[in-house]
Amino acid sequence: MASERAFTRGLRRFFGAARGVTIGIGDDAAVVRNAAANAVLCCDPVVEGVHFRRGDPPDLVGRKAVNRNLSDLAAMGALADWLLVSLVLPKDYPARSRQRLLRGIRSAARAGRCTVVGGDVATHRGPLVVTVTAVGHLPGRALVRSGARAGDTLHVTGPLGGSLHGHHLRFRPALREGAWLARQRAVTAAMDVSDGLLLDLATLLLASGGLGAELDAAAIPIRAAARRHARNAADALRHALGDGEDHVLLWTQRPRPRLAPGGPLAATARTPIGRVTARPGLWLVHADGRRERVAPAGFEHRLR
Amino acid sequence: MASERAFTRGLRRFFGAARGVTIGIGDDAAVVRNAAANAVLCCDPVVEGVHFRRGDPPDLVGRKAVNRNLSDLAAMGALADWLLVSLVLPKDYPARSRQRLLRGIRSAARAGRCTVVGGDVATHRGPLVVTVTAVGHLPGRALVRSGARAGDTLHVTGPLGGSLHGHHLRFRPALREGAWLARQRAVTAAMDVSDGLLLDLATLLLASGGLGAELDAAAIPIRAAARRHARNAADALRHALGDGEDHVLLWTQRPRPRLAPGGPLAATARTPIGRVTARPGLWLVHADGRRERVAPAGFEHRLR
Repeated sequence: MASERAFTRGLRRFFGAARGVTIGIGDDAAVVRNAAANAVLCCDPVVEGVHFRRGDPPDLVGRKAVNRNLSDLAAMGALADWLLVSLVLPKDYPARSRQRLLRGIRSAARAGRCTVVGGDVATHRGPLVVTVTAVGHLPGRALVRSGARAGDTLHVTGPLGGSLHGHHLRFRPALREGAWLARQRAVTAAMDVSDGLLLDLATLLLASGGLGAELDAAAIPIRAAARRHARNAADALRHALGDGEDHVLLWTQRPRPRLAPGGPLAATARTPIGRVTARPGLWLVHADGRRERVAPAGFEHRLR
Repeated sequence: MASERAFTRGLRRFFGAARGVTIGIGDDAAVVRNAAANAVLCCDPVVEGVHFRRGDPPDLVGRKAVNRNLSDLAAMGALADWLLVSLVLPKDYPARSRQRLLRGIRSAARAGRCTVVGGDVATHRGPLVVTVTAVGHLPGRALVRSGARAGDTLHVTGPLGGSLHGHHLRFRPALREGAWLARQRAVTAAMDVSDGLLLDLATLLLASGGLGAELDAAAIPIRAAARRHARNAADALRHALGDGEDHVLLWTQRPRPRLAPGGPLAATARTPIGRVTARPGLWLVHADGRRERVAPAGFEHRLR
């Protein structure tokens, strides 16, 4: 058994110091030096039974809790600076699992070049809930969801579908891609694909004033795991369009000016997967030219 | 039934606009203008069955979720700017309760002069968890836990004990008091009393290099509810010393210079409740001069 206080004192050493931290873990709140005139803020939880299963490795749970938030920063074109971590642990959560969870959080923070500066720990008779808050800054302009226009092409930074077969715990947030896209004048809108391509695309199009889109079925990049677990090509495509938790960036761009050469984008990301239309609605254009109206299916929490 | 997306769109209007918000609720992350060169960050959850009971009014639960964090900012001498709210709702949580919860969050934010700019909502088969992140700034210096010195006097901004009889849901964070104390040169350390006076005092003394303290039993301000529910005076004092969730500020100060006249402090707050000693350990000094060694009892989550 360890007391909450002894545990908190240990965390200060565990997460380490960083430039810009005036007061770190162990006081009522952290005090940090701002990296820019603006701050970019987001906060997403991961909940046992919803975002991961009880048996999933704790280090990967910690990693996902951080990276879900870093992916949101990436989608704004922001870089990460600070993290806060709220742990609500089951009463019987083993010390060893807790340490693995913390190691996962720390390694994801390091990979994202940010530092855990505070948070809280509580125990209860319920499932594990890890809530991470990320604070970042914009090195340039913000990538918003609302800037898409008819005639823009659609792009994603990586393959889609079958995330449940491991990717949802192991994805790398596209921080470099986001910051790079924010420097490209042609890019008009961007967002993180978390709830499924069709549903997130519909959200982006609605935020951009009620536009529509055509997707080229043959151009959608499909994750190998989605193909492997699919009954056929159509089923694999369906997974790519609706599974969610891909945590790639979806963005729209004008035909001109072209994106700069080089940079962190995968080669395939420069190939459009479709285009934005003035007419609302989502259409899938098959290789044989057949057009199919599709619903914005994906993952949504249902509220009463 | 409402979809998560429709709900999120409604929140933007519900929480309203504020100066300094470049991108508010509804994008991947919020973008805000920083109020100062520093930021003060904290994040605490409230969990059903731990921090409130299932039957507690949802508006008071929302209020507590915000004010727990604002009290942490207050203890640093910070002012609040932005809030993020992560809601993990039971699957059957009624729409009406959710609205009351949100109204409680909004009214506490307004009272604290800050704005909800983002967050997340998820549902699960478990208890309600509301995690608020507060982002503020320091108008002056930071009040830390580590600055107390032997010979300093001890003070609290308000009465202690019996918080469970309603105060824990209804307290007002001492933001004005904290910012005012941070301007007083005599003040050496401060902290939020959340886990019980003795336990929090022990934490402050440890952070200040392993000091001790004597508390004057007759000087401890006791909340009326603690007296009302106590068997006798000794029992009421015990509640004041250890119940926790008082969310008053505990601070230490040198004898000179005196605190400025006026300001937001209650008159009683200027009367010391004890003093810091070089010798470690906590002592209670009774009205008859009897000295009693006391353990730093209070509320701690036990971790395995």
